[in-house]
Amino acid sequence: MSKFWSDIVHKLTPYVPGEQPKIQNLVKLNTNENPYGPSPQVIAALQAVANDSLRLYPDPDSSKLKGAIADYYGLQPNQVFVGNGSDEVLAHVFSALLKHDKPLLFPDITYSFYPVYCGLYGIDFELVPLTENFEIDLNDYAKPNGGVIFPNPNAPTGIPMALDSVEKLLQTNTESVVVIDEAYVDFGTDSAVGLISHYPNLLVVQTFSKARSLAGLRVGFAIGNSELIEALVRVKDSFNSYPLDRFAEAGAIAALQDKAYFEQTRQQVIASKATLIKEMQHMGFNVLPSGANFIFASHPQHDAAELALKLREQSIIVRHFKQPERIAQYLRVTIGDEAQTRQLIETLKALV
Amino acid sequence: MSKFWSDIVHKLTPYVPGEQPKIQNLVKLNTNENPYGPSPQVIAALQAVANDSLRLYPDPDSSKLKGAIADYYGLQPNQVFVGNGSDEVLAHVFSALLKHDKPLLFPDITYSFYPVYCGLYGIDFELVPLTENFEIDLNDYAKPNGGVIFPNPNAPTGIPMALDSVEKLLQTNTESVVVIDEAYVDFGTDSAVGLISHYPNLLVVQTFSKARSLAGLRVGFAIGNSELIEALVRVKDSFNSYPLDRFAEAGAIAALQDKAYFEQTRQQVIASKATLIKEMQHMGFNVLPSGANFIFASHPQHDAAELALKLREQSIIVRHFKQPERIAQYLRVTIGDEAQTRQLIETLKALV
Repeated sequence: MSKFWSDIVHKLTPYVPGEQPKIQNLVKLNTNENPYGPSPQVIAALQAVANDSLRLYPDPDSSKLKGAIADYYGLQPNQVFVGNGSDEVLAHVFSALLKHDKPLLFPDITYSFYPVYCGLYGIDFELVPLTENFEIDLNDYAKPNGGVIFPNPNAPTGIPMALDSVEKLLQTNTESVVVIDEAYVDFGTDSAVGLISHYPNLLVVQTFSKARSLAGLRVGFAIGNSELIEALVRVKDSFNSYPLDRFAEAGAIAALQDKAYFEQTRQQVIASKATLIKEMQHMGFNVLPSGANFIFASHPQHDAAELALKLREQSIIVRHFKQPERIAQYLRVTIGDEAQTRQLIETLKALV
Repeated sequence: MSKFWSDIVHKLTPYVPGEQPKIQNLVKLNTNENPYGPSPQVIAALQAVANDSLRLYPDPDSSKLKGAIADYYGLQPNQVFVGNGSDEVLAHVFSALLKHDKPLLFPDITYSFYPVYCGLYGIDFELVPLTENFEIDLNDYAKPNGGVIFPNPNAPTGIPMALDSVEKLLQTNTESVVVIDEAYVDFGTDSAVGLISHYPNLLVVQTFSKARSLAGLRVGFAIGNSELIEALVRVKDSFNSYPLDRFAEAGAIAALQDKAYFEQTRQQVIASKATLIKEMQHMGFNVLPSGANFIFASHPQHDAAELALKLREQSIIVRHFKQPERIAQYLRVTIGDEAQTRQLIETLKALV
């Protein structure tokens, strides 16, 4: 508290990201990173950036990257917005497109940064409870609103929503923006990008941090009608002209180009997920359906917090959310590589 | 205009950064970049980052970089805030520390991003005219205010303010935050960092984009009392947990470590500036005193816009601001390396 703070600062409850432990040799399954590093082509492209040109500002519009994303999805560059990680993209989305008189709607159990953005920008919101099975029921969103946002697959549950359900929402909800946050979409969920041309109020947000193995590079993007993108550009250009540095732009372009590597590594993650789910179910875990690179699971005979602690004693970190109450007995476990998956399975077998 | 836009978007007048031309072989003296590339130690440190660890998020607190900056200035890490370029740092400063009932004060001729931030955050501000000689007269700031911000040296004039003047302002202005934006301080202006411990309302903002030759890497920072820094951290953690990617943190740390290279290159820039000013004065230019890596100059017989156009025809880009009226006959010229400085001098000689 300080007389020098703007009013808003007193009211903020900042987001708490998952731990980035400073200890080595941990099996880090707590922040949904990819177990596989970026493609060798990406590494080579990044090494090439480390030269004298770093004295110069990057392209403020990141136009090469926008062009590459547009090409990848068969869209125009003015349908693409890029930012310093999808968290920054989402921040601008909340500010530019989701602040209206009517409340923004999102699930009660979802990415916990959403209410934080609302606090920062003074956005009125209403939490829509998930069903008993932790699913999003779109009938619950059929009410006046200033916008709708949810991740698909949802986080931290991992449950995917079918594309026809997303489209049904768009057919009825035409007067406000619908944001589908597809951070984890490449691990077994259908993307809504193909619907962009049909629904001028649809915005899809994606990231290079997960399936593209570049969490350390900070690149996210949004795809939508050019009118929605223009709002994001206006806010971005009133905040920071150059959010993407020279490494971020070059690395992201190279990651899009190596389609074979992307396909191979995401299939490996999907395969490890199938193995893990099967084994955990054998151990008596209740595992929610997952379209993501993580699973959300509980065990009827074991307290989740205790289990997380015991895993940590064995050098495996997973994420446990104490709040809300409804998910306090669940653990969110990132899918590791094959060896990590085996290690996790063996460790769990000894614990439950 | 769109029904999907938040109200604020309709009202924004975004900042327009200097051109980043896509043509090669231009003498680019328009955006105050360093003519010398980063230190070889920085390049090596950056190359070492291009590895598998990019799959992992960076440290959300950039604690190694904060520690390195704190060590460099003999401060504590909780007196340091870092961001994705000093533009992002400034955005958070405006949001977290400069929004109050009383108006924020800044010069009428200054960094043109300041009023843009005010527009984004709804901050009431009052422009304080520079004197006839384009100087900041601190007596003009002795009035009720919600904060004071100015660059030292000022931009685009380049005129430095003596440290005892800054301190006089701090002695009288104790009830609101005073931000000294020191982007160009290393080229001949005294820094106010040494005053931090004495004035709890002083915040100094610096960047790695200018004297550290890393505009392409996007790293800026703020230094001040831990209470001011806490406000910035709270806003940052409500906006984007990981604004600095793995390259940005590693490159900035290496740049701080190579003090010899920093000293050598900044002295070369200062020497080229002295040569350029002397030669331009011989040609009849009026050159304002400069504590920056650029000069601000007018010629009584030559229209500034025309001169900029003619220079461009000779492949030299400088920056001309049409607004405000008072500076419409001035050109802002970044200091290049020795060869660029000679080329500029010869070209100007043929034009005036």
